[in-house]
Amino acid sequence: MTLAEIPVETPRWGVFPFMRNIKLTIEFDGTSYAGWQIQLNGLAIQQVMEESLARLVGHQVRLHGSGRTDAGVHARGMVATFATDRPLPLRAFSDGLNSLLPPEIAVLDAQEVPDDFHPRFDAKGKHYRYTIFNGNRRAPLLRHTAWFVRGGLDLAAMRRAAIHLVGEHDFTAFRAANCAAKTSVRTVWSVDISRDGELVLIDVKGRGFLKNMVRIMAGTLVEVAQGKMSPDIIPRLLDAADRSLAGRTAPPHGLCLIEVYY
Amino acid sequence: MTLAEIPVETPRWGVFPFMRNIKLTIEFDGTSYAGWQIQLNGLAIQQVMEESLARLVGHQVRLHGSGRTDAGVHARGMVATFATDRPLPLRAFSDGLNSLLPPEIAVLDAQEVPDDFHPRFDAKGKHYRYTIFNGNRRAPLLRHTAWFVRGGLDLAAMRRAAIHLVGEHDFTAFRAANCAAKTSVRTVWSVDISRDGELVLIDVKGRGFLKNMVRIMAGTLVEVAQGKMSPDIIPRLLDAADRSLAGRTAPPHGLCLIEVYY
Repeated sequence: MTLAEIPVETPRWGVFPFMRNIKLTIEFDGTSYAGWQIQLNGLAIQQVMEESLARLVGHQVRLHGSGRTDAGVHARGMVATFATDRPLPLRAFSDGLNSLLPPEIAVLDAQEVPDDFHPRFDAKGKHYRYTIFNGNRRAPLLRHTAWFVRGGLDLAAMRRAAIHLVGEHDFTAFRAANCAAKTSVRTVWSVDISRDGELVLIDVKGRGFLKNMVRIMAGTLVEVAQGKMSPDIIPRLLDAADRSLAGRTAPPHGLCLIEVYY
Repeated sequence: MTLAEIPVETPRWGVFPFMRNIKLTIEFDGTSYAGWQIQLNGLAIQQVMEESLARLVGHQVRLHGSGRTDAGVHARGMVATFATDRPLPLRAFSDGLNSLLPPEIAVLDAQEVPDDFHPRFDAKGKHYRYTIFNGNRRAPLLRHTAWFVRGGLDLAAMRRAAIHLVGEHDFTAFRAANCAAKTSVRTVWSVDISRDGELVLIDVKGRGFLKNMVRIMAGTLVEVAQGKMSPDIIPRLLDAADRSLAGRTAPPHGLCLIEVYY
């Protein structure tokens, strides 16, 4: 359904008695954006979506996201909600909104949810995927979606290291210096490492994540795979709780938020 | 090896007695380019590469490609050759050149080949892949590399149609109106259709191709898959030799030159 196909009898103004809470599932290419959340410098996905939604519903809209993403990070399953009293059909919020959004952003699904549903506080967990291109030369067609790491990678060592990241830990060593979270304890359910040709995929699922946590995990696991760190260093990194001991923060463009669990 | 690492004793000027013919295998993201071949309007991959090569070797360079590609079409295995008398190591033409090329273009391999090797006339065949994204909503992360076709696609019908394209045929119905080739007879070795989740891949291998041929094949096969054409129409299209009877020309961004066979 394009915007033109939304029933013309739909009122575009006036007061409607029923507020609805709409949940959107969103895919975006974060390459040229300053991340999900509105901020002072740089264009945020949230801002672009709020502007497109305002055009669609005819009133100002506040989108509540399931969490922030760093500049340059992608999503195939970002979740956000907004409230509106306009009696538009749900397809107006997927197909209709997609006709207003730029090509880098699309709504995959729109659902009506209870008033008290909150995409951040009700999230049970998340699935992130970090993609590494492990070829001999840089790959132009993957340059926005995979981190180019050349040379041999010992995936067995990487998996031995990854085991130590699973569980409830103080992830101070794996959080950005400016991370504002109150506690640094998080629970990681699984870290799966797989190879698909020249791609190495790191799939991380967990209850919650600190700022840069998956990117620092990916950067550290790559140093293990390159033989620069021992797999057994991970428990000591966690115990030491010192960011400077972990590996580098892997670049944002390899990271993608795959799914938020509710 | 970066440009800075090329041995400093390498002479950058003067006359060397031995000309070498260098074969490059090239990957490029054609999104923002006017195709491979230099032309009056728009920036061509060939032009960018010739300029970078000239900077590397210190003399004007003419690159000979294995064939043209349309604007917006990608390549993971374009082949081109050039002649130089500079005694640079082969890695200068891969890693060294990559440090000069823009992120959309990379040399995957550089080899020295006999003087009489010509990438176009010596090509035995080519492999093209056409990628369709067959999801319910447009996919921002695939927008430059896959054609978004919504709704059900009958792959079995597509495969029945594809069989008729294999072999030596007059492909007049599958060539662009302005195609300049002398003969419209071409030999297609195979047309393989596969599904990978929401992706549908059309892999076409053959001795040679006319202008837009793979894109018109993809557009026609999609119309068959949508039930707009019968699979059995293909032999009649070939016999009628009338471009207007075949399907639409699928957009360029779904097409990728995978390999040139020698």
